[in-house]
Amino acid sequence: MSPPAENGLALVEIDTPALIVDLDAFERNLDKMAALIKETGVKLRPHSKTHKSPWIAHQQIERGAVGICCQKVSEAEVMVANGVKDVLVSNQVVGPIKLSRLAALNVDAQVMVCIDHADAVSEISAAATGHDVVIDTLVEIEVGGGRCGVEPGEQALALARAVTDVQHLNFAGLQAYHGSAQHIRDHRERQAAITAAVRMTAETVELLDANGLRCEIVGGAGTGTFEMEASSGVYTELQAGSYIFMDADYARNQSEGGGPFETFEHALFICAGVMSRPNEDKAVVDAGHKAASVDSGFPLPWSLAGSEITGMSDEHGV
Amino acid sequence: MSPPAENGLALVEIDTPALIVDLDAFERNLDKMAALIKETGVKLRPHSKTHKSPWIAHQQIERGAVGICCQKVSEAEVMVANGVKDVLVSNQVVGPIKLSRLAALNVDAQVMVCIDHADAVSEISAAATGHDVVIDTLVEIEVGGGRCGVEPGEQALALARAVTDVQHLNFAGLQAYHGSAQHIRDHRERQAAITAAVRMTAETVELLDANGLRCEIVGGAGTGTFEMEASSGVYTELQAGSYIFMDADYARNQSEGGGPFETFEHALFICAGVMSRPNEDKAVVDAGHKAASVDSGFPLPWSLAGSEITGMSDEHGV
Repeated sequence: MSPPAENGLALVEIDTPALIVDLDAFERNLDKMAALIKETGVKLRPHSKTHKSPWIAHQQIERGAVGICCQKVSEAEVMVANGVKDVLVSNQVVGPIKLSRLAALNVDAQVMVCIDHADAVSEISAAATGHDVVIDTLVEIEVGGGRCGVEPGEQALALARAVTDVQHLNFAGLQAYHGSAQHIRDHRERQAAITAAVRMTAETVELLDANGLRCEIVGGAGTGTFEMEASSGVYTELQAGSYIFMDADYARNQSEGGGPFETFEHALFICAGVMSRPNEDKAVVDAGHKAASVDSGFPLPWSLAGSEITGMSDEHGV
Repeated sequence: MSPPAENGLALVEIDTPALIVDLDAFERNLDKMAALIKETGVKLRPHSKTHKSPWIAHQQIERGAVGICCQKVSEAEVMVANGVKDVLVSNQVVGPIKLSRLAALNVDAQVMVCIDHADAVSEISAAATGHDVVIDTLVEIEVGGGRCGVEPGEQALALARAVTDVQHLNFAGLQAYHGSAQHIRDHRERQAAITAAVRMTAETVELLDANGLRCEIVGGAGTGTFEMEASSGVYTELQAGSYIFMDADYARNQSEGGGPFETFEHALFICAGVMSRPNEDKAVVDAGHKAASVDSGFPLPWSLAGSEITGMSDEHGV
């Protein structure tokens, strides 16, 4: 089967449904983020779970990113195999199979990992020892997202100490990502959530520092909040990733002035074909649940003013 | 990368997240549907969009299925290339690229298609002529699902006539699928929806018959309603497909007696690993939006009484 679209085709020549990138918008997003980050003096380590593409990762690194984030070891394997040498698996990795693979990657690259439980210290350390590598480890703290992470403060200190106490692990800093804040619509509420996260993170950095544990990396942030973490004076690395394509849900966020969040442009689209017109007001397109996820609501029709998606099934959108 | 699971592994040996099949339950579902269908005298043409696997299609055909349904030409191509010779694309196919591919498949196999608009007659006919094949065509009628299809009755008659009027197309019958009825919880309401669909379909079959157009195939039905269409005396082919794995949402349907719909067994699971335990009441697993769709609600934890999924992000389930 040939791909449904190639560079330079006119829209009508594309076989549908097809996932297409507006390369101009995509490149403007890459450049804009690079410029915004440069101003702040903080580093960018974009999250690659948005694209899972080593080619795009290299585009980001060429524009100044210090490396990339992956969410899984399998993704890190693809990145390292394709020449990306500085990766953070911004997640817990559990079990000897995955940890052995993570350690193996550290022979030729730096692939860091997060940790949020004392039990994992010996498990990660064993994998690192088995491959004779040192794994840089970030202690993940819970800063409001309600997902993984130890409590900021004493719990984080205890875990950081446990990491420094074993061979083959290096305590590299904190992972302090507030995921659920990314899509808070109101700018003031979003800022309040991040202000709280920054405070918890700053206190933990200070506590660790007072105990002789320096945080080389303090990482977090996403496309919805990166400017807040960047100006915090606490975070050293930002993990924003969605900015390259700018998903529809981020467009529902409000910016500081109350207007829509338009810092980046939509660059990734599903090109769908109309397969049925049951009546004048209704079109059935060939993109359904198997073409578009609905966890953030139905897809938004692009440049079809007044139209909306009202229902989807496996291969149909209505 | 090696696959996360192989036949015969113990659960703890599986790398997570992994999509695993309970082969015993799967085979019992295959056998049970074959037996139920045999009783009715109606044919089974299972929908393969559930599995997209030629191997499973052959398992179904060996047990008496007359062929299979696909939802897209690209799926039919994979089936035909792997020896499945009787396929219905149970959907509209639009545009010269896809129609040419559909016609090409008919050189070595029978790949039927649905139609719901007069404009498509000449388009499909042109593709068939180009490949010197005859394409069997089902007129799709709208029987309550609110998606594709012409109105039952006169509109269907006009379209069927248009199909018979052109070369290289053969009018093969009706597609009368009531998709949205499949997951109506209450058995009586579900039956009422199908009774209405059956009535519209029967009237259209009679109208066509009175005008010299015989419906060799009257197709429709899904796992939620197939027994209703089977006993209607109108439908000749059933397109149920989900029964092989029995998804969680079908388990929310009620059977005739008011009890749960237990005709088939759950056979497809996502095996997830716990990656974090923020507290006693909460576990974070490594299966999120990228492992499980949420268009029918959150996944159901299997054999973990009292637990439920309360939130998901890309690679996390909480």
